[in-house]
Amino acid sequence: MCQLLAINSNAPTAATFSFTGFSARGGATDHHADGWGMAFHDGQVPQVFHDAGRACDAPLAAFLRQHPLRARTVLAHVRKATQGAVGLANCHPFVREWRGRSWVFAHNGDLKGFRPPLDGSHLPLGQTDSEHAFCWLLQRLRQAFGGGHGPAPHWQALAPVLAELLPQISVHGTFNMLLTDGHALYAHGSTQLHWVARQHPFARAQLVDCDLELDLAGANGPDDRMVVVATQPLTRTEPWQAFGAGELRVFEQGRPVWQQATPALAAAA
Amino acid sequence: MCQLLAINSNAPTAATFSFTGFSARGGATDHHADGWGMAFHDGQVPQVFHDAGRACDAPLAAFLRQHPLRARTVLAHVRKATQGAVGLANCHPFVREWRGRSWVFAHNGDLKGFRPPLDGSHLPLGQTDSEHAFCWLLQRLRQAFGGGHGPAPHWQALAPVLAELLPQISVHGTFNMLLTDGHALYAHGSTQLHWVARQHPFARAQLVDCDLELDLAGANGPDDRMVVVATQPLTRTEPWQAFGAGELRVFEQGRPVWQQATPALAAAA
Repeated sequence: MCQLLAINSNAPTAATFSFTGFSARGGATDHHADGWGMAFHDGQVPQVFHDAGRACDAPLAAFLRQHPLRARTVLAHVRKATQGAVGLANCHPFVREWRGRSWVFAHNGDLKGFRPPLDGSHLPLGQTDSEHAFCWLLQRLRQAFGGGHGPAPHWQALAPVLAELLPQISVHGTFNMLLTDGHALYAHGSTQLHWVARQHPFARAQLVDCDLELDLAGANGPDDRMVVVATQPLTRTEPWQAFGAGELRVFEQGRPVWQQATPALAAAA
Repeated sequence: MCQLLAINSNAPTAATFSFTGFSARGGATDHHADGWGMAFHDGQVPQVFHDAGRACDAPLAAFLRQHPLRARTVLAHVRKATQGAVGLANCHPFVREWRGRSWVFAHNGDLKGFRPPLDGSHLPLGQTDSEHAFCWLLQRLRQAFGGGHGPAPHWQALAPVLAELLPQISVHGTFNMLLTDGHALYAHGSTQLHWVARQHPFARAQLVDCDLELDLAGANGPDDRMVVVATQPLTRTEPWQAFGAGELRVFEQGRPVWQQATPALAAAA
């Protein structure tokens, strides 16, 4: 199993505070010490960092805690290996281009025997169930929307299709998932995923994993707005909400814009 | 225009010495200050770093000069923008998956009006002529070898096909190019590209761009072997060789394994 983190905002935002707490789970406050990854995505090309070491003390993770890269969507993952060896090739997030956009995906959970045939439009580089599921998902999106030209589909078109596809994966096991093209953030809860909204008037936030507190009002302007999604709440002092089983939520510009709580296939399964 | 650097070795090798000289060209000793990128590739998933700043003083470039990441193939690029704005989306190297391998590409030069139709199997994220050419190249390789399953083609199969395809690009302008799947390094010279082999007995190497010297015998074991490719020689003391116009060379395990000096189409043009 693993842990997930995502931030979606209406303005480029640093993730240093959240990543400080989150990366402690990569070997210090929790046992997810089999690699980690982080993506900063503003809609065109994400900056993506992967490392097969422990997020709590890898030099590259320390660099990212100390240097506030900013992006409207940030996605991170710390890994506890279940399927696939420890190594760079099995570190999330996974990245693929489709329709001229860069799609970034991370998964927490375990899918038993879900290795559907892939047509070659997207193939895994590593050995995880997660990357296989991501390639299958993009393959199905290509089939639904066409692989060719034209702009990538807006979340209003994509979300209902995802809501049909994701249950076909999650019937095979635990499938907490984050997906972004740098415009919208798609988050699917299976067993454990939480989210919280932050906006004016901002509160003080105290990390669960470190003795560190941040005055969000000092770090953000009055018009800033963001959503944080994490496997387990990152802060003690904010009203985190749990995703329901099978719930898909879409966030854009730092606010929730779409949700579907009871996917048809899961309800019928 | 831009500058290129690649190292191909028979054992995971640090690129800190070469990158120290090379990154100085990103705004200090030369004017390639419009972004930079670097990939460390061991055959499965490369670690790729992109930055829209100046390689000579960007914090991430300083991190890479100070922390010796090791890989069998390293590829780097400093950009002087010709086509496409300054920004992350236009920073080389570009990366795409094909046949379950991660292909990494960088280009020095300028292609005039080369925007062939793309079928959607690979589309650019940014606006450069370079990324468009890379997507076209992968599209043609998919057509030649099939997009579907099976292992990625070995360099012995790929090199002759590349030798036919690359002149179709380079007739449109300057096309010095590096391509790797982490196994073989493909280097195509158009106007300026140089290479040098290093093996036992290693010499001392003195950088052109910095007052820095390295005893290569101390940094490498007697069985280590590598090839360095760069737009302009990185060191004063080694026997760098220039690529001929239109010459394609393939390096694997730190040595030259294939070359073609006179591509048919270029000779006929």
